[in-house]
Amino acid sequence: MTPTPEGRNNVLWPDVPRGPLSTYRARASFSYRELLLFWEGEDVLRFKVFGSTVFNSGSERHLAYIEKIYSMEIFGCFALTELSHGSNTKAIRTTAHYDPATEEFVIHSPDFEAAKFWVGNMGKTATHAVVFAQLHMPGGQCHGLHSFLVQIRDPKTLLPMPGVIVGDMGKKLGQNGLDNGFAMFHKVRIPRQNLLNRTGDVTPEGAYITPFKDVRQRFGASLGSLSSGRISIIGMSVANLQLAVSIAVRFSATRCQFGPTDEKEIPVLEYPLQQWRLLPYLAAAYALDHFSKSLFLDLMGLQHGLLQGDHSARQAELGREIHALASAGKPLASWTAQQGIQESREACGGHGYLAMNRLGDLRNDNDPNCTYEGDNNVLLQQTSNYLLSFLERQPQDGVRFTSPLKTVDFLEAYPEILSQKFMGSSAADWLDSAAPLVAYRWLVCYLLQESHQRFCQEKRSRGSDFEARNNSQVYCCRSLSLAFMELTVVQRFHKHTHGCSVPPSLQAVLGRLSALYALWSLSRHSALLYRGGYISGAQAGRAMEDAILALCVQLKDDAVALVDVIAPPDFILGSPIGRADGELYKNLWNAILQQRGVLERAAWWPEFTTSKPEANRLKSQL
Amino acid sequence: MTPTPEGRNNVLWPDVPRGPLSTYRARASFSYRELLLFWEGEDVLRFKVFGSTVFNSGSERHLAYIEKIYSMEIFGCFALTELSHGSNTKAIRTTAHYDPATEEFVIHSPDFEAAKFWVGNMGKTATHAVVFAQLHMPGGQCHGLHSFLVQIRDPKTLLPMPGVIVGDMGKKLGQNGLDNGFAMFHKVRIPRQNLLNRTGDVTPEGAYITPFKDVRQRFGASLGSLSSGRISIIGMSVANLQLAVSIAVRFSATRCQFGPTDEKEIPVLEYPLQQWRLLPYLAAAYALDHFSKSLFLDLMGLQHGLLQGDHSARQAELGREIHALASAGKPLASWTAQQGIQESREACGGHGYLAMNRLGDLRNDNDPNCTYEGDNNVLLQQTSNYLLSFLERQPQDGVRFTSPLKTVDFLEAYPEILSQKFMGSSAADWLDSAAPLVAYRWLVCYLLQESHQRFCQEKRSRGSDFEARNNSQVYCCRSLSLAFMELTVVQRFHKHTHGCSVPPSLQAVLGRLSALYALWSLSRHSALLYRGGYISGAQAGRAMEDAILALCVQLKDDAVALVDVIAPPDFILGSPIGRADGELYKNLWNAILQQRGVLERAAWWPEFTTSKPEANRLKSQL
Repeated sequence: MTPTPEGRNNVLWPDVPRGPLSTYRARASFSYRELLLFWEGEDVLRFKVFGSTVFNSGSERHLAYIEKIYSMEIFGCFALTELSHGSNTKAIRTTAHYDPATEEFVIHSPDFEAAKFWVGNMGKTATHAVVFAQLHMPGGQCHGLHSFLVQIRDPKTLLPMPGVIVGDMGKKLGQNGLDNGFAMFHKVRIPRQNLLNRTGDVTPEGAYITPFKDVRQRFGASLGSLSSGRISIIGMSVANLQLAVSIAVRFSATRCQFGPTDEKEIPVLEYPLQQWRLLPYLAAAYALDHFSKSLFLDLMGLQHGLLQGDHSARQAELGREIHALASAGKPLASWTAQQGIQESREACGGHGYLAMNRLGDLRNDNDPNCTYEGDNNVLLQQTSNYLLSFLERQPQDGVRFTSPLKTVDFLEAYPEILSQKFMGSSAADWLDSAAPLVAYRWLVCYLLQESHQRFCQEKRSRGSDFEARNNSQVYCCRSLSLAFMELTVVQRFHKHTHGCSVPPSLQAVLGRLSALYALWSLSRHSALLYRGGYISGAQAGRAMEDAILALCVQLKDDAVALVDVIAPPDFILGSPIGRADGELYKNLWNAILQQRGVLERAAWWPEFTTSKPEANRLKSQL
Repeated sequence: MTPTPEGRNNVLWPDVPRGPLSTYRARASFSYRELLLFWEGEDVLRFKVFGSTVFNSGSERHLAYIEKIYSMEIFGCFALTELSHGSNTKAIRTTAHYDPATEEFVIHSPDFEAAKFWVGNMGKTATHAVVFAQLHMPGGQCHGLHSFLVQIRDPKTLLPMPGVIVGDMGKKLGQNGLDNGFAMFHKVRIPRQNLLNRTGDVTPEGAYITPFKDVRQRFGASLGSLSSGRISIIGMSVANLQLAVSIAVRFSATRCQFGPTDEKEIPVLEYPLQQWRLLPYLAAAYALDHFSKSLFLDLMGLQHGLLQGDHSARQAELGREIHALASAGKPLASWTAQQGIQESREACGGHGYLAMNRLGDLRNDNDPNCTYEGDNNVLLQQTSNYLLSFLERQPQDGVRFTSPLKTVDFLEAYPEILSQKFMGSSAADWLDSAAPLVAYRWLVCYLLQESHQRFCQEKRSRGSDFEARNNSQVYCCRSLSLAFMELTVVQRFHKHTHGCSVPPSLQAVLGRLSALYALWSLSRHSALLYRGGYISGAQAGRAMEDAILALCVQLKDDAVALVDVIAPPDFILGSPIGRADGELYKNLWNAILQQRGVLERAAWWPEFTTSKPEANRLKSQL
């Protein structure tokens, strides 16, 4: 006899605890275990920036380092950003002069503004760094940015190497388990072999050789290893959002406040306003989780091709497409998480403001996701540039809108799409994500056209590409990138939740999640839908809002079970108000009373009680 | 000879330092001293919650406490919220039973869910508390919530009084200088005189007497003292926003990144995207500052009337109006500040994430402004209820839309206003705040009508007021309150910046600030402007966006000088990247290197270098 799926799952996942949340769990339209099994069938693994950079940017001669990294003999960090330069990596000012007499590079920081800054693990622990520096040859020629392996500390003593000033940056808003550091180099000599030479190399005699003909092409390739970092950040953001929304939904299902009569109070999750504040973020946590995992698989495909030595045009196009998706995916995921955490914090009221309930740590820890590996607003320009490049190339050589992952293929029909109009008139017409999906395609076409026109107009009136790009970001290119990204997430989530592999008992709840995420995201663009004529009349906009509220009501009884699927165990979630047993007040009260010295007097009590200042003396003493 | 204004101002405010910000200061269209003098002509004073509650809720017999508060013999706190109840104050469960035998009240917490919670100053310092409890008489009758003066600690030892369990809540996300605490009372006896008896009293024999006939009226009056708290919070939020935007603007004016050529980099403030991210918040800092000060003066007028014993209908109406303005003003100000701080943090990139630059503290310290003295979303319902009450009373008794401060008077013409349409077609038509002001009046009328219709429809289909109110919040009443509040802020700022007292040299810059705040706020409602037919066609929406961008460009050279007016001195601003001298990197580098032990090894270095775990052993040990 084979074990039943339910029996097998009981072994893998124990029962959720009984308690105040049982009411909502009993009302759920689906089995949380079944969804958990369906959802977690596709989990993934992570990277290490230092090791993967050495591996991807170096060559055989650096394999010894890889071994030492894995045996923990050395501990590395990735040193690109400087005090005065982050986004503009080309302007990095650290230099590496080659000295053929000793076959060494001389790494040097011209001044403190060129100090490496914000380098993770550098503050206290790293023994080695991948240092990005401008490569100068004996003849005076500069070959641009390259990366070098530089030992910064003695692994036996952790004291800095001669010529290296290295230290910790101090307290940050969050992520203080990571020792971000700074370093300055005073003519530090490293062997010629320490150049990570995948994109360019120097012979012992001092000749520069590269497999790339074009400097810009080489620069692009040398920064290619950053793409996987952005995709990791999408995953981190999704995890933060899942934690926050789990805490807030469980809190809302157990916190009662007001009710139809003074005697009877109801859970705040029963209020449409609270549903509307939280459930779209719950839907986003699912939609972005799926996107994050699927993009990671795309990245694996790309890296598989790289390792196989695939130099085909398709491989290059796949690299560009993934770069565009990661560059807008990170902003969308990190911002959604940041906003979702803030909303969760507020939705838990004062108790959400208590540090032990963890929403503050989540907000602080998620925050840098908006900045590192590329500032969100700067990164979005990569994606709009990618989309506009199809349009810009089209007149000359008849380039078609097509890409390996097919995210842009629909644009081929953009003139016809732009003539479409929404034909529905009631909330029911919006209740499946197919409707917002069609609207999103129109929206991206509209913004592509607006952005292109704005760019061309600015180009004509100002002359420079630089100014034309800068002047077409707000309301045009920036919106285009975000809308394109949302469309991609909606498209993938719609497909995933409407596929034939979805168990029948999960189709309703997943379909609602998909529709809610799509509609809620789309509704923030409804001014553009009106402006471009895709919708018209008061009823169309009202119908969209009604549909969002209807989906919230349909999902509120499923919300606790949906959270059970994505929430980690209590000891990882680490939030008294978000524990799976739903014993909100017992857990919180226990945690409060277990704090050290909670009922003791403050250490300064004698001073406070005996040394009273005289009234009104404080002011005159200042 | 009288001193010139400029000479007098030089004595009051020393020169701003020379440095990298001098370029922008030289470009400013106005004298920062002149604006400072104009702007700060109207500064105000603050309150103390405990003292003012005793003063406002008690009577002559409590004046001795007031003296002790001011001589610092006792130190008080305000204990309303409980572990399980915040917003729903009527459901507070602490009890006060009167015992005529001893002429005492017995204060009691029935269980830990009724523990007083989140009480500022209670954790470690307060000796007395104003405790809100349900008043029960010997005959068994409950007279509802009243406030009592309860001694919780011995002022000489700071040890708790018998029957009182009191402690500190532990770490919060911010505001950790304040010792929020909790307390439980086990049959704690206090003298009869400790009832704060402004709204109701108990005779020695145990008879209840009150000047109010109606329980609801008495309840409202007992919570009336909360209004000034909300207005204080508006001021605190504005101060936080001013600090954040000062840091971000100065950073943006000195941080150079990219440029028209690889050689020449430009300040990030030159990018339209950066201007669009920050300058509306700079305008908001001015607009909300003016609103905050003017509302405070309105409150002074109200309190003056109370002290004079004014019981006129106008005084009551003024109380309702100020209550409505404070209830939506706090959400608008605290949310604008929270979003502005987040935008400022991100606009400063990684350096904004460094704790020493203070944007994290500002975010954490501003955050509770969204929650305490009433959750923002709950408070907004007070304002929409106020507005709807005019409409609901109208059919019966012909009530007119009029209020002492005239904030609702325009609604008298709401049917005509709803038939208006925007007649402009270009950005120029939006460049003065008069245009968005007219649009805002239409918007508030539209949302008032939508909210009223939704409420009536829900009332018909569900029957209960409770459900009808709950179901008409999202997209209706909530939006109505916010739009009405924005209109009020825009209206007052428009009037202030267009009045005859504005020096001619300041008219241009103040007019632009007013237009930018108004348009930027309005643009978030543009879907409704389209939906209701106030604007139509692609050009109208585009023109609004163009006007916002044009105003940003016009203001960017004034931004540094505008910040000089609202920024406190450097030692209060406390942010290396925001110092007035603009020496961004020198200040930051100095601050980094001045941290204790910055170049020292971590204390755990020997363990890290010698006790290496074997590779892959970590996992199996878990």
